[in-house]
Amino acid sequence: MELYGEHGFEHTTVAEIAERAGLTERTFFRHFADKREVLFGGAAELQATLVEGVASAPTGTAPIGCVAAALRAVAPMFEERRAFARQRQAIIAANPDLLERELIKLATLAAATAAALRERGVGEPEASLAAEAAVAVFRIGFERWITAPDGGPELAQVMDGLFGSLSATVAAAEPASAPIGAAGGSTAARGRRRESRTRPASPAASDSPATM
Amino acid sequence: MELYGEHGFEHTTVAEIAERAGLTERTFFRHFADKREVLFGGAAELQATLVEGVASAPTGTAPIGCVAAALRAVAPMFEERRAFARQRQAIIAANPDLLERELIKLATLAAATAAALRERGVGEPEASLAAEAAVAVFRIGFERWITAPDGGPELAQVMDGLFGSLSATVAAAEPASAPIGAAGGSTAARGRRRESRTRPASPAASDSPATM
Repeated sequence: MELYGEHGFEHTTVAEIAERAGLTERTFFRHFADKREVLFGGAAELQATLVEGVASAPTGTAPIGCVAAALRAVAPMFEERRAFARQRQAIIAANPDLLERELIKLATLAAATAAALRERGVGEPEASLAAEAAVAVFRIGFERWITAPDGGPELAQVMDGLFGSLSATVAAAEPASAPIGAAGGSTAARGRRRESRTRPASPAASDSPATM
Repeated sequence: MELYGEHGFEHTTVAEIAERAGLTERTFFRHFADKREVLFGGAAELQATLVEGVASAPTGTAPIGCVAAALRAVAPMFEERRAFARQRQAIIAANPDLLERELIKLATLAAATAAALRERGVGEPEASLAAEAAVAVFRIGFERWITAPDGGPELAQVMDGLFGSLSATVAAAEPASAPIGAAGGSTAARGRRRESRTRPASPAASDSPATM
């Protein structure tokens, strides 16, 4: 990570990494397929924890509750490693190939999460929507968490807050996104949301099964 | 598109494309930087239409209403081209490099949409959450639309239905994703949703501003 930060990812060789770490190149390759894997080696564990979190949510938990529980299970994997996460994110942001790899990782996480929900009997499009919501909360939450000063809220709290904000933001879409009230920020959106609770359920909610 | 379908994207050369289209290679390169651009040439127009749709939503429209309106503006770009969209999707799904490019396109769309919302005065995390919701609805809606038989609902209708489903799915997260009722499908989620309307607003919704 030091070398990637000092010289850039492209200009760091496996030989240099091995030397800095006091290892042979052969030992490096016993742990990592290539130098990208130093940054993405945790992806499999992350996905396994997420899928396991969805699978082990109590029977009867709503799809969004399953993914929220799964993200709560994932958060401790990062809590102790905020400095590492910051370094990693900066390296990835500076390199288009790594950014592609990161996007693939997130898309793969979403697909695995949706599959885990279907495994529980959740239908479509609910499984895919809940999975996409989870990955959006993870991505945005992670970014907010690493840019916040140390001592701020923990990753799990940040993500929990984002589920609340997402619910308020998305609920304002009904009925049929008619313009009401003032533009903008969260307070207005929450105001509209509370307002929308007094209305009957939107007919739009029953449209989608026809497209399955 | 025919050649990509017949021989695969990797095994099609610009010379072959030019020949099939009755053009010189030089003319091809006047229109496309490379053979990938045949598949992604519409990305700039798509993004411009989406951003313009957000910007031109009436004053006072909620963030999610802005993105829903923008997607409604985008839908006609595809309606007449379902066969092309199907071919394109199959080619992209078969090629990891193209899939990466597609993911980057979608991430770029989300970033541009969030920026257009902030331009309207929408704060964070609402702008990013509404933008991610829009891209999720676009991606899932597009896939459902191209896999549905011809004569089914139009893309705009499919996406409108998904905003309703997303709202129902995400709302079930409150309060704090406690397990209630039966597992699974949309009917249960909608039932819980209506139920949740009788409760006071979740305290979780006010957590996120502390992380900004």
